[in-house]
Amino acid sequence: MSKSSTVTVRETPIAEVVSASTAGLTIHGETIVVQTDQRIELVDLTNRVMEFVRRFNIREGLVSLWSMHTTCTLFINEFQTALLSDIKRFLEQMVARDAEWLHNDPNHSDCDRMNADSHLRALLLGHSLTLQISGGEVVLGQWQRILMGELDGPRARSLRIQIFGVS
Amino acid sequence: MSKSSTVTVRETPIAEVVSASTAGLTIHGETIVVQTDQRIELVDLTNRVMEFVRRFNIREGLVSLWSMHTTCTLFINEFQTALLSDIKRFLEQMVARDAEWLHNDPNHSDCDRMNADSHLRALLLGHSLTLQISGGEVVLGQWQRILMGELDGPRARSLRIQIFGVS
Amino acid sequence: MSKSSTVTVRETPIAEVVSASTAGLTIHGETIVVQTDQRIELVDLTNRVMEFVRRFNIREGLVSLWSMHTTCTLFINEFQTALLSDIKRFLEQMVARDAEWLHNDPNHSDCDRMNADSHLRALLLGHSLTLQISGGEVVLGQWQRILMGELDGPRARSLRIQIFGVS
Repeated sequence: MSKSSTVTVRETPIAEVVSASTAGLTIHGETIVVQTDQRIELVDLTNRVMEFVRRFNIREGLVSLWSMHTTCTLFINEFQTALLSDIKRFLEQMVARDAEWLHNDPNHSDCDRMNADSHLRALLLGHSLTLQISGGEVVLGQWQRILMGELDGPRARSLRIQIFGVS
Repeated sequence: MSKSSTVTVRETPIAEVVSASTAGLTIHGETIVVQTDQRIELVDLTNRVMEFVRRFNIREGLVSLWSMHTTCTLFINEFQTALLSDIKRFLEQMVARDAEWLHNDPNHSDCDRMNADSHLRALLLGHSLTLQISGGEVVLGQWQRILMGELDGPRARSLRIQIFGVS
Repeated sequence: MSKSSTVTVRETPIAEVVSASTAGLTIHGETIVVQTDQRIELVDLTNRVMEFVRRFNIREGLVSLWSMHTTCTLFINEFQTALLSDIKRFLEQMVARDAEWLHNDPNHSDCDRMNADSHLRALLLGHSLTLQISGGEVVLGQWQRILMGELDGPRARSLRIQIFGVS
């Protein structure tokens, strides 16, 4: 059995910025990069996403956020220092870092990041969000924040943002 | 460090009912309210969503469901009294309510709901679903039900439903 | 209280293959079937989804993947034999199969599959993915693979795939 992971290869690279439109429908995609400073870090992307959506003249539609990494997640929660500490503690409790995972064992894996915990924690949080746009802005509740959960930093992380709608 | 949570503020409030269309594409969004009666409660929204979709002449498309609250979730599972009890027990086992979370500590948090457990349980379930519409109806398997997981009730909860497609 | 689960019934069955288009927007949906061989099995669907998307002349858009089953999941992670073993071990640790769940108790449930663990594990992984299409191909990071998590096999599982975009 192979110790390697399967690589995903597109025929052409993803364009940094791309648009398409037809009869009043606009689709626009971009890559955004977020630099993290810690191994586990929760970054509030809400303002960045809200500003992105306001730049385009999309009145009603969807906005998709996609993390391009297996160990970097996207999810909704409240942004408060105390709760962020609780979330990190919870992730560490749910998945022990040193539990003799095969992905960390050179006899079974050619990955040298020793990050099985990061992969397993990512299962719980997910890698994407599909939000609504209404009235030209993202639909979010008062306490809802769009959070990026870095699980194996520090690293520069690429996210793909795509808006899709009618002006 | 602040004890407060960041608030999400749109420039304009979300309209109760809103539509847009262009050249055969229709987008329609509404807010629906669900009253819950217990702290943890699982509500079957399937019939309500199915009826909503049938009201519009959308043959093929998507329907997005979004909970406007950090402690109210949306997910798919089977609706059976015994299984619902198991799901509640599972959530209580995964996240202890009384585990000295910082979000519940007045020294670190200005939240007086003592609901760290609700926030952490919500991480596991998620806040939104993006379903397919085909043949004018929602695409669901025979045993799949659209469930709202109230994690800090009783409360009146707002959900945003948006359909997006071609008639 | 009933021991039975609520059944989801559409007015008409979901078409095997269906398309709609308007003024440059195309929507195309199909059912795909995946046969599994084990009770818990992780299947890499990435190449199948990538090939599906390339068959259509959709340059920018979305592709929705939907599992039609409560105990069959869809999620993103790395595909490596060692990590797949870790994921299975993690799911088994998070939800014990023999924990006296009511769904497995004939006094409370008419389900004879004894699969409460499958339903609870599915809560953690989710049943759908909504991916971006850009430049005519699915948007995925280098190590990201689209995985189907069979949690109560072996069975033939139906997934619904829908692409939605502009050519």
